[in-house]
Amino acid sequence: MNMNDLPTTWTLARRAERMNPSVIREILKVTEKPGIISLAGGLPSPKTFPVAAFAAASAAVLANDGPSALQYAASEGFGPLREAIADFLPWDVSPDQVLITTGSQQGLDLIAKVLIDTDSRVLVETPTYLGAIQAFTPMEPKVVAVASDDEGVLVDDLVAKVGTGADKARFLYVLPNFQNPTGRTMSDARRAALVAKAAELNLPLVEDNPYGDLWFDNPPPAPLTARNPEGCIYMGSFSKVLAPGLRLGFLVAPKSVYPKLLQAKQAADLHTPGYNQRMVAEVMKGGFLDKHVPTIRALYKEQRDAMLAALTKEMQGLSVEWNKPDGGMFLWLRLPEGVSAIELLPKAVERNVAFVPGAAFYADDADHRTLRLSFVTSTAEQIATGIAALAAAIRDHQAKG
Amino acid sequence: MNMNDLPTTWTLARRAERMNPSVIREILKVTEKPGIISLAGGLPSPKTFPVAAFAAASAAVLANDGPSALQYAASEGFGPLREAIADFLPWDVSPDQVLITTGSQQGLDLIAKVLIDTDSRVLVETPTYLGAIQAFTPMEPKVVAVASDDEGVLVDDLVAKVGTGADKARFLYVLPNFQNPTGRTMSDARRAALVAKAAELNLPLVEDNPYGDLWFDNPPPAPLTARNPEGCIYMGSFSKVLAPGLRLGFLVAPKSVYPKLLQAKQAADLHTPGYNQRMVAEVMKGGFLDKHVPTIRALYKEQRDAMLAALTKEMQGLSVEWNKPDGGMFLWLRLPEGVSAIELLPKAVERNVAFVPGAAFYADDADHRTLRLSFVTSTAEQIATGIAALAAAIRDHQAKG
Repeated sequence: MNMNDLPTTWTLARRAERMNPSVIREILKVTEKPGIISLAGGLPSPKTFPVAAFAAASAAVLANDGPSALQYAASEGFGPLREAIADFLPWDVSPDQVLITTGSQQGLDLIAKVLIDTDSRVLVETPTYLGAIQAFTPMEPKVVAVASDDEGVLVDDLVAKVGTGADKARFLYVLPNFQNPTGRTMSDARRAALVAKAAELNLPLVEDNPYGDLWFDNPPPAPLTARNPEGCIYMGSFSKVLAPGLRLGFLVAPKSVYPKLLQAKQAADLHTPGYNQRMVAEVMKGGFLDKHVPTIRALYKEQRDAMLAALTKEMQGLSVEWNKPDGGMFLWLRLPEGVSAIELLPKAVERNVAFVPGAAFYADDADHRTLRLSFVTSTAEQIATGIAALAAAIRDHQAKG
Repeated sequence: MNMNDLPTTWTLARRAERMNPSVIREILKVTEKPGIISLAGGLPSPKTFPVAAFAAASAAVLANDGPSALQYAASEGFGPLREAIADFLPWDVSPDQVLITTGSQQGLDLIAKVLIDTDSRVLVETPTYLGAIQAFTPMEPKVVAVASDDEGVLVDDLVAKVGTGADKARFLYVLPNFQNPTGRTMSDARRAALVAKAAELNLPLVEDNPYGDLWFDNPPPAPLTARNPEGCIYMGSFSKVLAPGLRLGFLVAPKSVYPKLLQAKQAADLHTPGYNQRMVAEVMKGGFLDKHVPTIRALYKEQRDAMLAALTKEMQGLSVEWNKPDGGMFLWLRLPEGVSAIELLPKAVERNVAFVPGAAFYADDADHRTLRLSFVTSTAEQIATGIAALAAAIRDHQAKG
């Protein structure tokens, strides 16, 4: 029989229709032309990767503990790494509450599986991290945006958006430190008010903190989870303080949800590579992060300053607005009235600079004038050149109106 | 405000109720007492891990390509590894069809997300790999077992089980080589008949092949996917030929499903660690697997022979039946009439030997007399001692009847 005479029809799950390629990854492909200055992607500067420390750690792990590092392992994660994480966090965390994940993106996938039913209401900030929406989407939630200002989510709007009965929101997803995409940080007062209101509303919080260690002048206020551990799941990552290519993140969950997250983890990939977990545990020994992270902060602060200086210089007279992030990787910019970031992008790429249009980050009504600029992937010199090109593209766009 | 006065209620998704801890992992915990001979777990022998090759590969990757290995990367996987996999497979595969996964367990998770709706019919063998059922469960399928014999799934029963209309099975999951849990292998004739019948029924096949390279005397027949690539998703793994602790697997999918599997992958963990992918690509250079895999085959064959010899010697007069696997890691045993493997287990553990009761592997009516024995984790000497202890436990159980 010739199988070509009997072509197989693959019936896809309904959720597959909702899945889409990441807008950002598609943009990054368009902007991969040689010589372009990318202010688009959220790629940490490779200069910050401690290659020598990893090489030493890898050799040590394989020499001292090779067979265990290469064997199947517990779904919860490598014990000493869970302990190191619990010690590192600024509130009282038991290692038993720490679940190691294959990057913090996987934490979002596990949370979605355990907490979202079809049509469940899920609350997010305005705008919010695109990857979170992508991770939630396969579980088919109704994603509802809570109004937000320069400090993040507006507590008063929670009451209007939380829903009731079967439509009660399962959780609010929030990224309080140097948010992706806006770079904004939630103040201490806002955190206190949010945690209190969430407790009053019996609304669980999912706190994502990949950038919190990348502060420039002062550490950010205490995490939401530190204020009410039983009401929050906390997510952290080694992608920004060590390297993303190892895919190592973690979550901290209360006892009421931890066992189900663990079962979802086991079904998803059995466990995160034990070899990678041991390498990071080895690198962390002797307070390595205390010495290493300040070097990342210094570099990114210098590059943020370069971006702010270039914006001040180049955007004169253009009615462009931007914020001043206190840490992290991103800055948020608003174009003049009538200028759409999506329409501007190809003109910027022609001038060899790329960014991500802000519309990608809104769960509902997008502000099409916004865009996200990364100050970590490119050098200070490239940033200056790139911002000048961006300003030229805006001028050109306005002139042709 | 004291948050303890306002405890948060976490509403779990309906699917979370269906999730359960792996029976096997729970058994493994019970059997972790010192001195026990484990014939239970499917842990590859650590002797087979090429630690020195990994050490050299890790040093080379970090020295030559460190920043790229440690950076975010494409969700599809590392290009040279995808090419090496496509070259290695025994049919015409384009690297574009290869998706790198974080262990082949993740392949099952992605397939479940893309192909299973709530209450979708999914067909499995009798018995089948427990981890597959665990990966499918969060998408809430109706798992239906197809009758199987010593060669695997019975083609005639497919017609009875495939369903019609909205209840038409989304796919049949099948593990043709040295199956987990039974160790059985599907004959060439059965493969041909299954692929033809599946095409006739317009039934997609999901072929899982983690053990296919671990043959002892002769390679198994050609994969199902090689016979009808457009009608099958193929899954492979480096866990058994190199090491499981790196969590590296892959799937090969036709163009009609690949893009959705890729989007599910991106949402699940962005990408599999690029560092690990480069290490394996580096280790594979120069035909390493052609030299290394035969050493694993030789060791496991010796240990299988030790198990068969011990069974012949120790089970005399006990009406115990077992098969003779042609490769892989597992042997399937059937206890005498009236002896339940679950009831036998604690008595075996008292005698310092552990196994996995077969009931764990059935999607529906279980044969409680069956059990799975692994011949890879323990040495030939340990296997001989363990089988003697198992026979003593059976005799003791029968005597106390």
